[in-house]
Amino acid sequence: MKHRMLTPGPTPVPEETLLEMAKPVFYHRSAQAKHLLLEVQEDLQYVFCTNNPVLTLTCSGTGAMEAAVVNCVPPGGKVICLSAGRWGERWRNLCKAFGAEPINVTAPYGQPIQPEQLAEALAKHPDVTAVTATLSETATGVRHDIASFGKLAAQTPAVLIVDAISGLGVTEMRTDDWHVDVCVTGSQKALMLPPGLAFASVSDKAWRRIEQNLTPHAFYFDMKKYRDGVKTGETPFTPAITLVRALRASLKRLRAEGIENIWARHARVAAAARAGIAALGLELFAAQPVEGLTVFKVPEGIDGETLLKKLEKGYGFKLAGGQDVLKGKIVRLGHMGYIDYFEVLGAIAALELTLLEMGHPVEVGVGVAAAQAAMGQGLTISNEVGV
Amino acid sequence: MKHRMLTPGPTPVPEETLLEMAKPVFYHRSAQAKHLLLEVQEDLQYVFCTNNPVLTLTCSGTGAMEAAVVNCVPPGGKVICLSAGRWGERWRNLCKAFGAEPINVTAPYGQPIQPEQLAEALAKHPDVTAVTATLSETATGVRHDIASFGKLAAQTPAVLIVDAISGLGVTEMRTDDWHVDVCVTGSQKALMLPPGLAFASVSDKAWRRIEQNLTPHAFYFDMKKYRDGVKTGETPFTPAITLVRALRASLKRLRAEGIENIWARHARVAAAARAGIAALGLELFAAQPVEGLTVFKVPEGIDGETLLKKLEKGYGFKLAGGQDVLKGKIVRLGHMGYIDYFEVLGAIAALELTLLEMGHPVEVGVGVAAAQAAMGQGLTISNEVGV
Repeated sequence: MKHRMLTPGPTPVPEETLLEMAKPVFYHRSAQAKHLLLEVQEDLQYVFCTNNPVLTLTCSGTGAMEAAVVNCVPPGGKVICLSAGRWGERWRNLCKAFGAEPINVTAPYGQPIQPEQLAEALAKHPDVTAVTATLSETATGVRHDIASFGKLAAQTPAVLIVDAISGLGVTEMRTDDWHVDVCVTGSQKALMLPPGLAFASVSDKAWRRIEQNLTPHAFYFDMKKYRDGVKTGETPFTPAITLVRALRASLKRLRAEGIENIWARHARVAAAARAGIAALGLELFAAQPVEGLTVFKVPEGIDGETLLKKLEKGYGFKLAGGQDVLKGKIVRLGHMGYIDYFEVLGAIAALELTLLEMGHPVEVGVGVAAAQAAMGQGLTISNEVGV
Repeated sequence: MKHRMLTPGPTPVPEETLLEMAKPVFYHRSAQAKHLLLEVQEDLQYVFCTNNPVLTLTCSGTGAMEAAVVNCVPPGGKVICLSAGRWGERWRNLCKAFGAEPINVTAPYGQPIQPEQLAEALAKHPDVTAVTATLSETATGVRHDIASFGKLAAQTPAVLIVDAISGLGVTEMRTDDWHVDVCVTGSQKALMLPPGLAFASVSDKAWRRIEQNLTPHAFYFDMKKYRDGVKTGETPFTPAITLVRALRASLKRLRAEGIENIWARHARVAAAARAGIAALGLELFAAQPVEGLTVFKVPEGIDGETLLKKLEKGYGFKLAGGQDVLKGKIVRLGHMGYIDYFEVLGAIAALELTLLEMGHPVEVGVGVAAAQAAMGQGLTISNEVGV
């Protein structure tokens, strides 16, 4: 049986990138390593849509989120934490862990935070040092309107820190145009790499705040230590250099396709996935869905855990379930990075068969046909669901 | 030209481990991943000579060092920092960064800290919370007597934290028998992997101290978050799962050879390297040398940087130079992990040729012959230089 991983991270790694990983290790303080680091820097800036330096950290996405908080927020600093799911909550927990004061602005799971909520919070708390947000709330499949958040934060002294881990390289994310001061992502989502690297772009406004923070709770994540290396191709600590070499291959691939084409492709695939799921009578969970995953409610009378197991054991499709309070209640179908339309069609076909087996009324072919029809509309659909 | 990396980290990765890295990525919250994490846990404990849990972190060795400090040392806590080189100094810098109070106990570069120095410092500062030490000071090639440090620290409330990054899997390191409370290592040394993972064993004494530390400056490096996962095969954050899979291959290899055999092998190769270097009239730098690298002074009239460049460009041998104040003054020949006796012979042969080219009086063959003669003495030599 063929196995296909359609989870919202990690995502499949292109075969030529896997082969990069099998090449011998080389010394990370060599001219070759410096050249590599400078090369990926330029391509990372392209993918981030930024002229700001993009720091490469050896850690998971959470490590880069920690770096953003501990560098930009002094102990006791107030932070507006926009939170509509598990990953938004991570910002809040990070703030608490490092002695910052989170001001919680929330939306129910499945709903996005509205820009008006941020405007209100900023008006009420003119002394906040930062606003944290989540481009793609992977826990619920919601996309946030970072452009609007950026417009609001830019008028205040607060820096806007965005977790774009499952959104960058998937959906429109214009770091500089949208006034995002720190944009964080990880390697194992749309960058099509194994986990192990994380990245953070840092704006001038953020650097000024970082320089004012004289006692950051940071050493390994001290952004100042990484700053000069962006220009020299050096890193303060031993980087996961084989992953960086693989990153180069991924970035070349992204650059060859073009970032706007990539956003449009994900939008088309997402539209097809949503149409297919809806045609099966399943309820979509996210009110303002992101293009990297499609989240739907497990229908009444069906056990969510069993559904996932059957999809994997019976047909080789690995999808993800809900986390925490959403465990067993939702299914998350990932289609970011190196997952294409035809695999999504396959996943919907497998879902049809599995639901049928489990006694749920489904007409085989209805979901797939709807997905194909949506895809057939091509760019029209893309414009509908795109940002 | 064949290229050979004989640096004291990163080290060459065995071919079969490289191929592990080229396998498809899999979901890190699967039964397969849990099984993998439990399997490497057991083998890590074997290599660490410990029954304590060994935490697997996605970061460089410095990240695990930071974890040790921020978890075990409360802000304002006193720490005796034993430092005989750049890596010993890293402990001091970490303590300073997180508001601990380092008490510096030093030895000149090339010399080890004597156990008496620690005894004195402990007597003078009965209120220290931790002692930090370095098994293998990679900057100078010195080995520290961790067993003696452990005997001393065990009689006090202080936890003993050891950087064993370039020493574990090279030279004798009996974590439990020697009363080492936190033992840290990285993936890219004797574990024969690319950089990207780091490990820390934690004793009961250390856990008690960690539990008392109610406000650690930690989230990503909060050891408590990793503790339960050691028994369940879970990790609090997305691990570099492809590196963990490669780790399994490395650990199997180490276990098949046997840890005491590994120490003896490194001791034999180190004895051969030292004999060869000395026979060329070069001065060994470390007074109590570790078995993972051989450090010698660049002879008068020879430019150290040029020597290294010529070795690499002319013969494909990549050795390392000195760092910071030792830059250009020493050469570091690494022979830990997947580097064998015959490669060390080759490196000495290349060194002979390079020195000759540079006008330094060398009789070709003298170094290699001395290395061979030392190796010929086999286990006798091992007993001499082994711990």
